[in-house]
Amino acid sequence: MKAELISIGDEILIGQIVNTNSVFLAKQFNRIGVEIAQITAISDQKNVIIDALDQARKRADIIIITGGLGPTKDDLTKHTLCEYFNDQLVKNEAVLLHIENIFKKYVNTPINEMNRAQANLPSKAILLHNKYGTAAGMWFLDQGQIFISLPGVPYEMKALINDEVLPKIKEQFVLPAIYHKTIMTYGLGESAIAERIEKWEEGLPKDIKLAYLPSLGRVRLRLSSSGVDMAIIKKAVDIQVKKVIPLIKDIYYGTEEDKPIEVLIGEKLIEKGQTLSCAESCTGGAIATRITANSGASQYFSGSAVTYSPSSKTKLLGVPKSLMDQNGLVSFAVAEAMAIGAKKNYRSDFAIATTGNAGPSKVDQGQDVGTVYIAIASPEKLESFKFNMGNNRTRVIHKTVNQAFEILFRIMLNS
Amino acid sequence: MKAELISIGDEILIGQIVNTNSVFLAKQFNRIGVEIAQITAISDQKNVIIDALDQARKRADIIIITGGLGPTKDDLTKHTLCEYFNDQLVKNEAVLLHIENIFKKYVNTPINEMNRAQANLPSKAILLHNKYGTAAGMWFLDQGQIFISLPGVPYEMKALINDEVLPKIKEQFVLPAIYHKTIMTYGLGESAIAERIEKWEEGLPKDIKLAYLPSLGRVRLRLSSSGVDMAIIKKAVDIQVKKVIPLIKDIYYGTEEDKPIEVLIGEKLIEKGQTLSCAESCTGGAIATRITANSGASQYFSGSAVTYSPSSKTKLLGVPKSLMDQNGLVSFAVAEAMAIGAKKNYRSDFAIATTGNAGPSKVDQGQDVGTVYIAIASPEKLESFKFNMGNNRTRVIHKTVNQAFEILFRIMLNS
Repeated sequence: MKAELISIGDEILIGQIVNTNSVFLAKQFNRIGVEIAQITAISDQKNVIIDALDQARKRADIIIITGGLGPTKDDLTKHTLCEYFNDQLVKNEAVLLHIENIFKKYVNTPINEMNRAQANLPSKAILLHNKYGTAAGMWFLDQGQIFISLPGVPYEMKALINDEVLPKIKEQFVLPAIYHKTIMTYGLGESAIAERIEKWEEGLPKDIKLAYLPSLGRVRLRLSSSGVDMAIIKKAVDIQVKKVIPLIKDIYYGTEEDKPIEVLIGEKLIEKGQTLSCAESCTGGAIATRITANSGASQYFSGSAVTYSPSSKTKLLGVPKSLMDQNGLVSFAVAEAMAIGAKKNYRSDFAIATTGNAGPSKVDQGQDVGTVYIAIASPEKLESFKFNMGNNRTRVIHKTVNQAFEILFRIMLNS
Repeated sequence: MKAELISIGDEILIGQIVNTNSVFLAKQFNRIGVEIAQITAISDQKNVIIDALDQARKRADIIIITGGLGPTKDDLTKHTLCEYFNDQLVKNEAVLLHIENIFKKYVNTPINEMNRAQANLPSKAILLHNKYGTAAGMWFLDQGQIFISLPGVPYEMKALINDEVLPKIKEQFVLPAIYHKTIMTYGLGESAIAERIEKWEEGLPKDIKLAYLPSLGRVRLRLSSSGVDMAIIKKAVDIQVKKVIPLIKDIYYGTEEDKPIEVLIGEKLIEKGQTLSCAESCTGGAIATRITANSGASQYFSGSAVTYSPSSKTKLLGVPKSLMDQNGLVSFAVAEAMAIGAKKNYRSDFAIATTGNAGPSKVDQGQDVGTVYIAIASPEKLESFKFNMGNNRTRVIHKTVNQAFEILFRIMLNS
């Protein structure tokens, strides 16, 4: 069973937005055993949409189209699908009522004809209820293939997928199981790892696929398999995972079951009833942001003192001015003092501190761009580490965030 | 002149990574007047890659392929291009030297045969120097069409585009001018705006395209045009912008010239020699992260106290415990006290404070999910605002960040 995603809208083609919808869709479809063969972003033009549909149906059983369902004139998807399936628009009273209710409840401007016209829908479509919005989802069956049209607004699209589309697909098809397991490593490059595990890789069963995914100082090794029975393919993949881990023991720090490392840290903290805080200079709040993106973070996260100015390091974290003068802002001593200050002022069990020069230019103290110090205060001890994270500001910040989580996680695992 | 982007790699198709490369590429090519007709993500399989190349060359003059150039066995792009152009691999001594140098300088494991094999490159390709990595870029000219193959690692790809690809394209082609102007509005829905500006929209010249881009509580209106002469199309678009602004004066807060609002705020602060700090509860560091993503932020940003626990609100920001007990953590009073505390402890001219319930479940104080208070302390006054940001945690956080920047920016413009 293969699917393709088609995103309609010029905002992707001119680089104005990131296509996060396709990430969500790809994940969800993979999870239920539908392989995504291609993801395509195209312009909001009738002939372009029709051409993309013609191409996609040559390769896929299910075609999911997002975007172009708004009430305004630049949205053409509905009319194009009507033409493509030789259909016509018919007013749907239930959808009209729903649109009117949304306006009554949530919108402080009166409803207009454009809004009402969103209830005019192709007669051949099975309608999918969009509980959060005014653009109904549409499901067409044509020559044995399924075409699903959804709004591009991410949270409307997501609810439609979870509540309407996936249950319907699971109901209609017997789907294969798809299983991925990702091994996380750090400290060694892609080809050095490949060389080490060469023999194991060559001996992999044909139905297990290996991919190397290098990113921000880490390499992830992803094993994938698909088959009829989840238990069987899971077992086959897990056997290989057990075989390869001893070969990379020194650089291995876990497998990723769709959980980012900050979530694993959070779970461990909750389990032990412990808390975490941060003192961030070069990461500028990015560590706190990653942690607080997860619901329930308040159970274990006390907060983060983002201290960009020297005086705020003293005021909020108690770092002595003399210490900064003597050692420079980017130093082991300041990182450690920040961690101690965060642990104390946030009354937490663990504290992460970062100080560094994210670039693009040298700071007063003369530390090179990319120089970063990370200190971790734990209930028992205080440790600090020095890195060179390269010369790209965004990368320095995010590599530092990953590195800090990885060090903390290893300390927590060993304590 | 049309181009298409093809991203190769299963990690996009299974939803493991976001395709940010295509955002960068789309922006850069648009800027020099090359229209992106389609963005496609496909699997790392020879026949799939060849099929995508065949399709793309029917529509585009330039085809840019990213990914699949790593040293390991799952990377097939180079071999596939070789076959597609009926070419063969030849060892390139200069590239080999470069690879060896990278290993000497930056890699702590010895070079191996896989790494060296990255210097074997198709004989028909013009090679593009990848200063940051071991995978050379390749430029093929075939039947008047250009095929460019680049590594998928974002910072390597970006450097290759800026230093090698764009200069070469500008040199070889006379490119049309493309101009976009985006008007930012907040507080009114897409169709209500459309109704208000209907007559203006109908009167737009045919070569100017209007798009409505709703996102996180804002609607952006994008006007686009292309032509031979940048001065002429810019003038034509700007005339329309001037005409429409009076119709939406109450909801208009600026035009976006590729600069996010936090950068505009930073520029204004530098201009006036002022500084900003934050006190973040429900945004959890996301405001600080947006600000510090920009180089030079240390000139105007003092920091942010991310205070998730009540005791840290007292310790770091001086919010009295009694005030929190009386009013609840999510309240006007606490937001204001946090803003005052940040302004004082960070010694800044402005301070943003946020407190709210980002969800997914109610907090003790019984404030509904989505309830958010934003307080802004400025040199002259203290203002606070209440919002309901909906019931999706990620959206609540990011809508609050946008809202806070918008309120601050308006206060700064009016002061």
